[in-house]
Amino acid sequence: MNNDSTSRIVAGLREWIASAPPGARVPSNRALMAEYGASPVTVQKAMRALASLGLIESRPGVGTFVRSVRNARPVDYGWQTAALGSPHSRIPVLSSTQRSVAPDAIALHSGYPARELLPERLVRAGIARAARSDAAVSRSPATGSPELQAWFATELAATAPANVTPPANRDVLILPGSQSGLSSIFRALVGSGRPLLIESPTYWGAILAAAQAGVILAPVPAGPDGPDPDALARAFAQTGARGFYAQPTYANPTGAQWSTERGLAVLEIVREHGAFLIEDDWAHDLAIDTDPRPIAAHDDDGHVIYLRSLTKSVAPSLRVAALIARGPARDRILADRAAESMYVSGLLQAAALDVITQPGWRTHLRGLRHQLRTRRDLLIDSLRDHAPTAHIERRPVGGLNLWVRLPDDVDVERFARECEIRGVIVAPGAEWFPAEPSGPHIRLNYSGPDPERFPEAARVIGDVLRELG
Amino acid sequence: MNNDSTSRIVAGLREWIASAPPGARVPSNRALMAEYGASPVTVQKAMRALASLGLIESRPGVGTFVRSVRNARPVDYGWQTAALGSPHSRIPVLSSTQRSVAPDAIALHSGYPARELLPERLVRAGIARAARSDAAVSRSPATGSPELQAWFATELAATAPANVTPPANRDVLILPGSQSGLSSIFRALVGSGRPLLIESPTYWGAILAAAQAGVILAPVPAGPDGPDPDALARAFAQTGARGFYAQPTYANPTGAQWSTERGLAVLEIVREHGAFLIEDDWAHDLAIDTDPRPIAAHDDDGHVIYLRSLTKSVAPSLRVAALIARGPARDRILADRAAESMYVSGLLQAAALDVITQPGWRTHLRGLRHQLRTRRDLLIDSLRDHAPTAHIERRPVGGLNLWVRLPDDVDVERFARECEIRGVIVAPGAEWFPAEPSGPHIRLNYSGPDPERFPEAARVIGDVLRELG
Repeated sequence: MNNDSTSRIVAGLREWIASAPPGARVPSNRALMAEYGASPVTVQKAMRALASLGLIESRPGVGTFVRSVRNARPVDYGWQTAALGSPHSRIPVLSSTQRSVAPDAIALHSGYPARELLPERLVRAGIARAARSDAAVSRSPATGSPELQAWFATELAATAPANVTPPANRDVLILPGSQSGLSSIFRALVGSGRPLLIESPTYWGAILAAAQAGVILAPVPAGPDGPDPDALARAFAQTGARGFYAQPTYANPTGAQWSTERGLAVLEIVREHGAFLIEDDWAHDLAIDTDPRPIAAHDDDGHVIYLRSLTKSVAPSLRVAALIARGPARDRILADRAAESMYVSGLLQAAALDVITQPGWRTHLRGLRHQLRTRRDLLIDSLRDHAPTAHIERRPVGGLNLWVRLPDDVDVERFARECEIRGVIVAPGAEWFPAEPSGPHIRLNYSGPDPERFPEAARVIGDVLRELG
Repeated sequence: MNNDSTSRIVAGLREWIASAPPGARVPSNRALMAEYGASPVTVQKAMRALASLGLIESRPGVGTFVRSVRNARPVDYGWQTAALGSPHSRIPVLSSTQRSVAPDAIALHSGYPARELLPERLVRAGIARAARSDAAVSRSPATGSPELQAWFATELAATAPANVTPPANRDVLILPGSQSGLSSIFRALVGSGRPLLIESPTYWGAILAAAQAGVILAPVPAGPDGPDPDALARAFAQTGARGFYAQPTYANPTGAQWSTERGLAVLEIVREHGAFLIEDDWAHDLAIDTDPRPIAAHDDDGHVIYLRSLTKSVAPSLRVAALIARGPARDRILADRAAESMYVSGLLQAAALDVITQPGWRTHLRGLRHQLRTRRDLLIDSLRDHAPTAHIERRPVGGLNLWVRLPDDVDVERFARECEIRGVIVAPGAEWFPAEPSGPHIRLNYSGPDPERFPEAARVIGDVLRELG
């Protein structure tokens, strides 16, 4: 009854507002009570409903008014069409991995680990300490905090053979996330209209950054233990490319790791072609079955541009990454970074350094390894049980993701939609291919959703595969 | 005595190390004690000295060894010259305003306010609260935190006339500093090889970001109350530019503010030419004699791209800025931001929002206004007293800087060097000109150094001017 009265007042006032001038005073609650024979509570409910629709606004102590913006003329941005022209590349605004979904869905699409896999206690304590430090109120140097530069240099040096000169602290540039590093590397070292070799499949964010920079991508098959050296050499020769982007350690999406021999062979080919290897060591802290072995540790001629991020292992709020580059390449990249963002928040750098230099950090990484292994194995087992036609080409040895090949006749987009209707969100694989996909794939993140729901997710995947098959 | 023994062992071992193969085992402490007739403490001191020189390293339980990196071959990065080619534009790595100088120098060159002008207590408390919030461990949406978007939208709406539709929250993009915004705007809305009108003189960071984006700058004289409308219209017609970059409020370097009438006239010309006004409201919180009056508040057709930063008024560590743009332009810029950096640290956003929504923030801004006025007036008075030939064309009505015209025959670079020798650092004006400087200028930041030293600085400036005159 009361609800009906509310609706009646809302409808009546909407009609009145539609013809009222903006800024007009809305009849008083007392007048509305009389007009509609309604209680004060009912009238107040109606007014709240109209306010939440943005149709009225109340000025305390003055009265309630028709919102002035409501009747403003409809805006036509058509003139911008001519001013903007065509974009030089069609950059998608949002990756499918970044979509927000219903809170009760099983979100296997996102690229981020669950909160319980983060060192939350260390992160909060690190930020709190940074809040009390000088970093909270001072400006960081353009290259980053010297202590954090030194930490990244030491980490890479730790795996360097005896005959290789490890990077100096000054070779390290601190970045606000590794995506910014990719953009700068592609702009500074490759440039618009020039070719870049890239693993296929590979990280969609690298493909996106290359598109933004206007770089022409030449895909090279990723291969189970790294790219085939002969194929790589041919690609260099054919394209004239001076760079090769790859994730040799726990590649996104496959979770594969190059063997050391393959890594050295690739480095040799890169050297022979006077080129750069852009080594994106995004998952250094996300090992499961092996240990990371950066190829950059084997290079002291400046052939490897090395990127390492802390965003996924420390916290998404502490967006800090490091780029290690030597020689003129380092200077070229630094100039781009300075023009792009000048410096990285010293607060984030201080908090991140605090976390990774605590004894608890190593303990956390050991626990994380165990949890990733358990989650990975549970998702693989669940798929084997409930979705036997979803083929797992390789058990990932690190990283956050499982790369799944679907039967050849499956329409991946339709498959993803059908899964979503049943509450399971998967990422269609096409985004990981610089060109046409080599087959129907999906990527499933085992580090995000509650593992107890993996069997349920696998059942949905199996059901949809059977229906579409 | 003991020190002499230590030095003798160090010298002897350095000679030995110079010819030893890398990784060679250093004679045992016992052997060295015997050889040099020294005590265990003396030998240990010598070993520590050699280790701190990076010449040896000890592996606990194994022994001490000649550091393998020491003898690595000198590296030649010459191959990179061919791989990199010429840069598409000569981007300077470091602005003169970002130079580090001797701690006892009077640093009038930097672009940042002194720490005592920051709301330090609010900033530390805001970060500490953010450390305990969800923002510390979660990922921000690509467009920014909805609360912070709403705050920036409301701030701009507060000065909008009744007949203008204020921006919606979704029109606000949160950025990691306004420099990133400039880069994205120039890439997304102008593009490489295309023209952009720009005030002259103007902020060097905008000139830098334009160079990075490959944009061709067409300077328009800034004028005392804003650019001359006829000159602006001619420049649009002659260049075919679709954008005009300006700082209408407390411009860097002059501290001038456009009159409202001039601002509306400029907006009208921008509209007539189907173009964008890129309004960089960098000093919104740095008012002295007037109040800021953003031109963006008068636009609802999407002609104004509005940038506002908190870096200089809240803290350099809380690098947060907002970009307000409507229509397809907003989407084009968002796509560039997503490719460039994906999202801004939610921690920084939460801490900044905490600061600017505290009652103490308004109190702080009032105090800041008073302090900037006192500092500005003291520097102007000091220059009048001690350097009468340094001409101050206009008393800045806001911002952090004094723009000073030197006598025509002064070599500004030499002037700056002579001042630096005497402990006063000034910024030569050439960096603020998109083309040749219109005359010899320097920029002096009255918000950075201790104001008690302003008379001393002015005396040095006066002395050097007399010597060079």
